[in-house]
Amino acid sequence: MTQLEAAKRGKITPEMERVAADERRTPEEIRALVAAGRVVIPCNKRRKATRICGIGETLHTKVNANIGTSEDFADHVKEVAKLKAAEGAGADTVMDLSTGGDLRAIRAIIVNESSITIGSVPIYEAAVKAAREKRSIMDMTPDDMLNAVRQHCEDGVDFVTVHCGVTLAVLEQLKKYPRVCGVVSRGGTFLLEWMKYHGKENPLYERYDDVLSIAKEFDVTLSLGDGLRPGALADAFDRAQVHELNVLSELAERARDAGVQVMIEGPGHVPLDQIEAQVKLAKDLCRGAPFYVLGPLVCDIAPGYDHIAAAIGGAIAAAAGADFLCYVTPTEHLSLPDVEDVREGVIAARIAAHAADIAKGVPGAADWDRQFSEMRRNRDWKGMLENCIDPERARKYREHIKAHIADTCSMCGKYCVFKLQSKATKRNKKVKQARK
Amino acid sequence: MTQLEAAKRGKITPEMERVAADERRTPEEIRALVAAGRVVIPCNKRRKATRICGIGETLHTKVNANIGTSEDFADHVKEVAKLKAAEGAGADTVMDLSTGGDLRAIRAIIVNESSITIGSVPIYEAAVKAAREKRSIMDMTPDDMLNAVRQHCEDGVDFVTVHCGVTLAVLEQLKKYPRVCGVVSRGGTFLLEWMKYHGKENPLYERYDDVLSIAKEFDVTLSLGDGLRPGALADAFDRAQVHELNVLSELAERARDAGVQVMIEGPGHVPLDQIEAQVKLAKDLCRGAPFYVLGPLVCDIAPGYDHIAAAIGGAIAAAAGADFLCYVTPTEHLSLPDVEDVREGVIAARIAAHAADIAKGVPGAADWDRQFSEMRRNRDWKGMLENCIDPERARKYREHIKAHIADTCSMCGKYCVFKLQSKATKRNKKVKQARK
Repeated sequence: MTQLEAAKRGKITPEMERVAADERRTPEEIRALVAAGRVVIPCNKRRKATRICGIGETLHTKVNANIGTSEDFADHVKEVAKLKAAEGAGADTVMDLSTGGDLRAIRAIIVNESSITIGSVPIYEAAVKAAREKRSIMDMTPDDMLNAVRQHCEDGVDFVTVHCGVTLAVLEQLKKYPRVCGVVSRGGTFLLEWMKYHGKENPLYERYDDVLSIAKEFDVTLSLGDGLRPGALADAFDRAQVHELNVLSELAERARDAGVQVMIEGPGHVPLDQIEAQVKLAKDLCRGAPFYVLGPLVCDIAPGYDHIAAAIGGAIAAAAGADFLCYVTPTEHLSLPDVEDVREGVIAARIAAHAADIAKGVPGAADWDRQFSEMRRNRDWKGMLENCIDPERARKYREHIKAHIADTCSMCGKYCVFKLQSKATKRNKKVKQARK
Repeated sequence: MTQLEAAKRGKITPEMERVAADERRTPEEIRALVAAGRVVIPCNKRRKATRICGIGETLHTKVNANIGTSEDFADHVKEVAKLKAAEGAGADTVMDLSTGGDLRAIRAIIVNESSITIGSVPIYEAAVKAAREKRSIMDMTPDDMLNAVRQHCEDGVDFVTVHCGVTLAVLEQLKKYPRVCGVVSRGGTFLLEWMKYHGKENPLYERYDDVLSIAKEFDVTLSLGDGLRPGALADAFDRAQVHELNVLSELAERARDAGVQVMIEGPGHVPLDQIEAQVKLAKDLCRGAPFYVLGPLVCDIAPGYDHIAAAIGGAIAAAAGADFLCYVTPTEHLSLPDVEDVREGVIAARIAAHAADIAKGVPGAADWDRQFSEMRRNRDWKGMLENCIDPERARKYREHIKAHIADTCSMCGKYCVFKLQSKATKRNKKVKQARK
């Protein structure tokens, strides 16, 4: 039985219990959310990660870090370092998006080394194999695509992105209404170019029942990829994107009917004032299926700082109902990220997720800030440096321009507002006592 | 005549013409906005900055960078480097918040070296002088405070923060309803502690007419400081904050009646879902006076990344109507910023401002992204590296993990979506031609 099937039958699994404990909810609440398809617990039967998580409505917003080799740089030692950096920075999941080196070997290492939930994009492997072993990506067969999905499930990944909504009808929309940046999803591009070349429907759409039966066998969660996600602000909410989302909502329904856990992927590059509508449309149309967004980036012009553009969009998206944020690193649009970039991307996304959780009223979210602010008022530097979101970074800054007075910082020194107020309070108490 | 007086009398000043040209608006539109008190053009009569700016409704959101020495580190060479970094990164204004070293000398250097609008907080100087020359800050006299305001105006700053709304009535609210973080504004703390100690009303409130006449003499814009800005999420929208805002709205009215340009300062630490209400309240209550926010920070727990917490809040605030964002650097709450931190803070705030300008529909704002995305689609790396928000940073990342194929990046390499689509288009054209 999958988590979804168990939940539908009223059964509480150990995974639901773990999620309930993490989220300070009752197991029955989690079961009901899973049964309704509003929460997923990605957890491959073949691999029981040490730390699993629930993703969806009313739960803490989760953060994913994309790692993986590229054709240009395929160093599995580096990828393990990125995995550890992502885990250390507090990522809830990691996706292995490798396209360079021995893909299966790298995946095995990542699945093995990771304590957290793992996702992947099987079409990348099908495409890379075709490019390497046949003449070109165009020589992928439908079986190659399905086999890649099966292979990834067998290898233990907990969720897979499948671009099943990239259909011939979507292609028509794209042709009729050209975009500034066309298709920016790699998986979407592989499929669309294949469809154009062969004049055939997307095999992952046509053989969606096969996709479902593979996913069900391993209880791998399907993440329905948005191949048409806008890659430029100007392309957001165009007909192709909306058409695909409509298709995804039907496919999500079929997955849930089949007992397969499913999430929906979302954009992308989106103007700030459109983010809420994007999230609400996706959540409503897909009947509350967990919504997984990449960014969204609120501008196109900030390479080098796209983790910030994405943190702005991610916070607004999550506050509006997105459940799962895919991080963006500072090197997005420029190069493969390095270890430090992964760490920075995760923290930026966690800040967005946390700010949104406070806004959404997720139980316990605001407690961290309240307790932290009490430490700040009390100039409890030890407490602050241990309990902030990135103790290592905070210590580094604090040491770089060091305060001359230990319980202040080098910005305010003796004019520290907390120190001034605390001194005044002590002085006033003395005055009062003297008067008695 | 001040800009406001001129505008009220229907006169278009050279400053209004410059702002109109920068904003792609007509001089008459700018004049009308200034006359209504909805736009200010901070521009001290004694100093004509090379680059002035308009701040307010319907204009581009502006960004301020705080620099200045502290008691612990008072190196004017470093402060000039920060000034240049802020200007280079695209700040519209700089505030000199120095509290260490020879304050007047440092201010003179900054005013002299800066090509952009300069602000300051005179009460800092009054407090530091009292601490140095008398027994303590408590020995400031009302005249000391007023003289500091005059001195700063004489020295050429274009706008001054004055915490005139910190009244005895506000103090009562604070006593009755204690906060997690009390008062975190330094100017507010100096005044409130002085008021408590002497049992007297805030001289900047009592002698507000004197403040107005000084400001008017030099056409220095008043930035009515929010001494009660929340310094913790838990303190946002409490009675003390709202009471002070009410006072500020009256003082803003009096300033406009007196022909003095005025803006309102706002928080601080604010939960994401409360930001829009904070902005709309301030803008409505103060009849559209330009609203200048510090952050706002959407969480308390991110020292080391507060530029990101502030970019999230700033983008939402500006989209909701805030006109002027004070940057926050990564070292906020930890130490005085260094040169690189200033630069990073400015860029983060500019991303927030730009994302908001697109959302608000500021004329021309979205053009930058559209043109940039066209370069991205065309793999025009030269164009992208020249036209992105921080060319230096983007180049650094691109070089760090360098692509093997010149017109791609090291993440996607030969699987670059733009390259695949452009190849396919060429191939399809050939096929079509062959068929003819």
